[in-house]
Amino acid sequence: MVEAMLSSMLTEILIPVAALVGIIFALVQWLVVSRVKMVPGSANGANNNNSSKNGYTEYLIEEEEGVNDNNVVNKCAEIQNAISEGATSFLFTEYQYMGIFMVCFAVIIFLFLGSVQKFSTKSQPCTYNKEVMCKPALANAIFSTVSFLLGSLTSVLSGYLGMKIATYANARTTLEARKGVGKAFITAFRSGAVMGFLLAANGLLVLYITINVFKVYYGDDWEGLFEAITGYGLGGSSMALFGRVGGGIYTKAADVGADLVGKVERNIPEDDPRNPAVIADNVGDNVGDIAGMGSDLFGSYAESSCAALVVASISSFGVNHEFTAMCYPLLISSMGIIVCLITTLFATDIFEIKAVKEIEPSLKKQLIISTVLMTIGIAVVSFVALPSSFTIFNFGEQKVVKNWELFFCVAVGLWAGLVIGFVTEYYTSNAYSPVQDVADSCRTGAATNVIFGLALGYKSVIIPIFAIAISIFVSFSLAAMYGIAVAALGMLSTIATGLAIDAYGPISDNAGGIAEMAGMSHRIRERTDALDAAGNTTAAIGKGSAIGSAALVSLALFGAFVSRAAITTVDVLTPKVFIGLIVGAMLPYWFSAMTMKSVGSAALKMVEEVRRQFSTIPGLMEGLAKPDYGNCVKISTDASLREMIPPGCLVMLTPLIVGTLFGVETLSGVLAGALVSGVQIAISASNTGGAWDNAKKYIEAGVSEHARSLGPKGSDPHKAAVIGDTVGDPLKDTSGPSLNILIKLMAVESLVFAPFFATHGGLLFKL
Amino acid sequence: MVEAMLSSMLTEILIPVAALVGIIFALVQWLVVSRVKMVPGSANGANNNNSSKNGYTEYLIEEEEGVNDNNVVNKCAEIQNAISEGATSFLFTEYQYMGIFMVCFAVIIFLFLGSVQKFSTKSQPCTYNKEVMCKPALANAIFSTVSFLLGSLTSVLSGYLGMKIATYANARTTLEARKGVGKAFITAFRSGAVMGFLLAANGLLVLYITINVFKVYYGDDWEGLFEAITGYGLGGSSMALFGRVGGGIYTKAADVGADLVGKVERNIPEDDPRNPAVIADNVGDNVGDIAGMGSDLFGSYAESSCAALVVASISSFGVNHEFTAMCYPLLISSMGIIVCLITTLFATDIFEIKAVKEIEPSLKKQLIISTVLMTIGIAVVSFVALPSSFTIFNFGEQKVVKNWELFFCVAVGLWAGLVIGFVTEYYTSNAYSPVQDVADSCRTGAATNVIFGLALGYKSVIIPIFAIAISIFVSFSLAAMYGIAVAALGMLSTIATGLAIDAYGPISDNAGGIAEMAGMSHRIRERTDALDAAGNTTAAIGKGSAIGSAALVSLALFGAFVSRAAITTVDVLTPKVFIGLIVGAMLPYWFSAMTMKSVGSAALKMVEEVRRQFSTIPGLMEGLAKPDYGNCVKISTDASLREMIPPGCLVMLTPLIVGTLFGVETLSGVLAGALVSGVQIAISASNTGGAWDNAKKYIEAGVSEHARSLGPKGSDPHKAAVIGDTVGDPLKDTSGPSLNILIKLMAVESLVFAPFFATHGGLLFKL
Repeated sequence: MVEAMLSSMLTEILIPVAALVGIIFALVQWLVVSRVKMVPGSANGANNNNSSKNGYTEYLIEEEEGVNDNNVVNKCAEIQNAISEGATSFLFTEYQYMGIFMVCFAVIIFLFLGSVQKFSTKSQPCTYNKEVMCKPALANAIFSTVSFLLGSLTSVLSGYLGMKIATYANARTTLEARKGVGKAFITAFRSGAVMGFLLAANGLLVLYITINVFKVYYGDDWEGLFEAITGYGLGGSSMALFGRVGGGIYTKAADVGADLVGKVERNIPEDDPRNPAVIADNVGDNVGDIAGMGSDLFGSYAESSCAALVVASISSFGVNHEFTAMCYPLLISSMGIIVCLITTLFATDIFEIKAVKEIEPSLKKQLIISTVLMTIGIAVVSFVALPSSFTIFNFGEQKVVKNWELFFCVAVGLWAGLVIGFVTEYYTSNAYSPVQDVADSCRTGAATNVIFGLALGYKSVIIPIFAIAISIFVSFSLAAMYGIAVAALGMLSTIATGLAIDAYGPISDNAGGIAEMAGMSHRIRERTDALDAAGNTTAAIGKGSAIGSAALVSLALFGAFVSRAAITTVDVLTPKVFIGLIVGAMLPYWFSAMTMKSVGSAALKMVEEVRRQFSTIPGLMEGLAKPDYGNCVKISTDASLREMIPPGCLVMLTPLIVGTLFGVETLSGVLAGALVSGVQIAISASNTGGAWDNAKKYIEAGVSEHARSLGPKGSDPHKAAVIGDTVGDPLKDTSGPSLNILIKLMAVESLVFAPFFATHGGLLFKL
Repeated sequence: MVEAMLSSMLTEILIPVAALVGIIFALVQWLVVSRVKMVPGSANGANNNNSSKNGYTEYLIEEEEGVNDNNVVNKCAEIQNAISEGATSFLFTEYQYMGIFMVCFAVIIFLFLGSVQKFSTKSQPCTYNKEVMCKPALANAIFSTVSFLLGSLTSVLSGYLGMKIATYANARTTLEARKGVGKAFITAFRSGAVMGFLLAANGLLVLYITINVFKVYYGDDWEGLFEAITGYGLGGSSMALFGRVGGGIYTKAADVGADLVGKVERNIPEDDPRNPAVIADNVGDNVGDIAGMGSDLFGSYAESSCAALVVASISSFGVNHEFTAMCYPLLISSMGIIVCLITTLFATDIFEIKAVKEIEPSLKKQLIISTVLMTIGIAVVSFVALPSSFTIFNFGEQKVVKNWELFFCVAVGLWAGLVIGFVTEYYTSNAYSPVQDVADSCRTGAATNVIFGLALGYKSVIIPIFAIAISIFVSFSLAAMYGIAVAALGMLSTIATGLAIDAYGPISDNAGGIAEMAGMSHRIRERTDALDAAGNTTAAIGKGSAIGSAALVSLALFGAFVSRAAITTVDVLTPKVFIGLIVGAMLPYWFSAMTMKSVGSAALKMVEEVRRQFSTIPGLMEGLAKPDYGNCVKISTDASLREMIPPGCLVMLTPLIVGTLFGVETLSGVLAGALVSGVQIAISASNTGGAWDNAKKYIEAGVSEHARSLGPKGSDPHKAAVIGDTVGDPLKDTSGPSLNILIKLMAVESLVFAPFFATHGGLLFKL
């Protein structure tokens, strides 16, 4: 075996440097965004306007100029404030619930893991190499608890920062839209980048620091060290669960409620300020699609890193204490930050958006550029950071692996992510026939629309599943479970760019809402709508990749769990495993039933409140009186917090109960079942929802002969399309994406508790 | 080991006797039904009427008496004729397609299995006991092909006979409805019983004869004998595939097409004779819900018997040539026929239905009585037909099993079926809160209705999956794969009663349609509607049990396949198996996408034709002109035959391709994945559909204060409910139930081709 080229010292420097570069880059972008002033008459406003009127950059379209300007800017600022306050207040209330959960669960972790060796403080022989002494289980309990808390806090911070920048940027995007679609695009995209880079860099930095601090205690016991680190992934994902589910219910209850009364019953446009639920709807975008998604992807990132690290710690990297090779996952992420930084410059500085039709290609170009660059990046990291040959733990044996094999593992994950993204785009963008067919089926009413939409979602799982299967096969064959974990990391390595694109969508959506509410002109609204439509498609792409990576992450965690629980085979032909498999495959249905029903009930409450306001507040429909926005915000908040608890419990308790009562074999079955079944529902649910949304937009936009034959707004086919869109809302924004977390979280929780289950689990069969 | 009490000779006699008793009973019931004359003015008609007017039995309600009577009877006969002709012509066309398939596939079976030993005619060492010589693989190829053809023909016959009796009984039920709901109920139920008993008895008899004839050649080589017999299951199930899919597409294309134009656009009632698609709709009930379902359940029955027999042949029963014990599965089925016969008498002779509200309890009582009696029956068979202790093949080892353990295996399956049935009823009957909640959600429109309905379907899988998991665990732990196979047989042992109840539904549905078309009075229609509503719920129960049994059957076949392919573990932790698992879990989605899209496209064609007729045939809406029913029948026929081919290919080719290219491990993964994922979609799809249907009926019937607040027909909530019902149609009658066959058929096909895959499979990995 040849040593890695990169020295340990250099590794110790490069990782934090990359993280800091990412953070600085994010702050610079924030600074640029902040130069759009929300105060009327400032340097960027009307004063400066005359001087540069001939340049495209500083030109305000005519009807927005003049006396009305101050008024509009003030109104935007006011609305932004309301959204920001609503979102902040929701998140803080949510964090109180999460805080209680965090403390309780920290205690559970400590007690369960501590009890493995009856809270003994003595060192004990290691699990994999009995000749060496490892730190006591009590230490593992304490450090796992600490890393769980760190992961939780980082996850919460990621979500919160994302929400802050999004609500900071939304009105700024609206104001920039007065100058042109390119300006607005850049503002929204930069803000997305702030979130993407902050999250990726923070996640890396905290993990890096934690490892280094823990090393002070653990010393050479890397097995124990990285076992304790898995708590970081659990913390990240469990916060994401509540963020995704709570945020998802919030946003869709408000959205569905606002649409059902506003669009369907009262026939007023979306985001009309007369609709009492409109602020809640906009708040929802920020707490669900921004904060929730941020926590989710942070969770995936943390988990795949932990899965890779824990497997590495019992492979030759860990056994021989090769620090650089051990840090391979972190180096991949570091490289990812740099690659994404370069990619972002292409969008913000190199190519300039001048027309609406350039937006979507520009975003897609981001994905392609980052993937191509990252492939080179992976090759570099693999050749400098890894010895040319090493061994990887493979369920009891050590398997010899070459560095180029690991390169293929990461690269196959990266490219599978791109394939999944583009397939998702094909099935959800209204530029292609699947969505157009769905739109066409609206001719015969809502029923055929729903049937075609469901069929589309089902069909859209085929290629992504093959892509995932191929990645699994390749990486599993080359480097066992470590291969899967780094494939997942590969898919997530361009997370900063992915998140920037993801966050761009809700920011544009909000910007449109603010334009409508501030009473800005039709042309502004058209520009923000164009931004939003592109965002819809890219959001679907983002969701597709998030689900794909969740599948790989979950499998990697499953592998790590199995290794740690000292299982060497999970045989479907044993009753214990098979019942786990079939019950596990049922859990996503149970979970989806809960979340969808929650959205439905919360939306019904919202509908009643909106109807009440419309009928009791005189002059509301005429625009003479203001609705009570606060009450709708409160309804969404209360409903989502109350409703997130049962699905949360289902996910958090299942591994504990199954592991304790039925033991590790059944739990393995449950994890495998939930994974293979959940990934299908997640993909089909989010694509079905995305397709309905864009089928509706296709009819509304009426760009082709065919689309015009279905429209205009208010026609029967359009009404049928609105029904499909409303059905799709909880599918694509609540139950679908939450399933990601279901499959990941159960796996990481099993991994953290593996020592307990291996020692004390399976009580029912011990009777 | 103690010998079984029942001698081989007695076994040889008892099985065919039970089958013949079943057939005779069915013929007697048919005779009773035929006494309802379709010729006006006969003994049973108006003449006889005066003499017994004081008795409830022969009393015709007033508006049906007198001069109009002849006219009505003639009209009913005419409509019945049209339906019967349409159904017969469809089935014959379908059989031509199936015939071609059957011949091609028979050739494939012969070539694949013959090639295992290069078409050698020499005897060879047995697979499990190398010291004994077994018949050559060529013999296996020939006999498998023959039993495949026999299974196919029996399946086709089952479907055809069911259709014949159903179309014979529908108008008779309508006519009897003039005398009272009890009379009509008995007629419909007796006709259902004809189908149930014919199918159960025929299936048993043909299987029994085949075994005995094959034994002449095979002699003591039971391993080879029962391997060849598995072709019977494959034949039964592959015909069922086309029957279910083709029939399912037919019935729902016609139904959705008829509803979308008739009910939604033209505002005419269901089954209105002015609707051109109305005959096609009624034909559809007979070819889809009767013939398709008949073939499906026959397939399940044949497969579970084959799975049990093939495992038994390599257990002590087969090795020691204990004929009685070997025939245990057939004896259970024989006992089932007798038990169901007694159960039927309760409905037809012991309790009499006098009021509408007694119908549903009476049907449910059938299920409970048959289950209780069958439990005793199983105990009797287990104690007289089995030695007190024996060994069962368990993936390479022999496991010692007691006869009472086998009793528990069968009984747990039987009772799990009942539990699944009642849970299904809870979620789909409008007497309970889940459906009422769905109906209530119609207040806010179709979108919330669809959301709540989907959530209900997802939720309804929880308990059935636990019931299946428990059955699997108990029977697997007690008697390995043989336990699972007999548990499936237990669930299917009361198949005659189950089928009678299932077939009763579409017959009543048709009877209502005929009453409407013949212009009979409102009161008659109310009676047939009441019959139909009860049938809807019991149909859902039947579907639930069919899915449950399919899950067990499929697992049993999977186990038999694994045994035959000489695999001892199916380890999820190997890449070959895992990719199989995840791709397998995707197949039900692919398949559902195909079938739902097919229904959608076929329905669109039907809508166009119905619209065309309404707009081009003058006087159609006024009832002055007759629509062109034949054209609609033709559209449904053509569409369903064309559309059944791609999903059919998916199911039939997947095991062949996977087995040949990727080998038996990956195929095992595919089977397990398809099973655990498919059963969930199947249950949720059929319950969602059933719930929407009954939510609509709940609003229409308006029996409670709450229901009335949502109605009446034509109100906004009712319109929303109709949309849900239409979406549910393909879910509950096409894609949901077809998934049963997907999971069973892939398993039985793998089992039949196992020797080929074991010898020549996995080409891709051999490169």
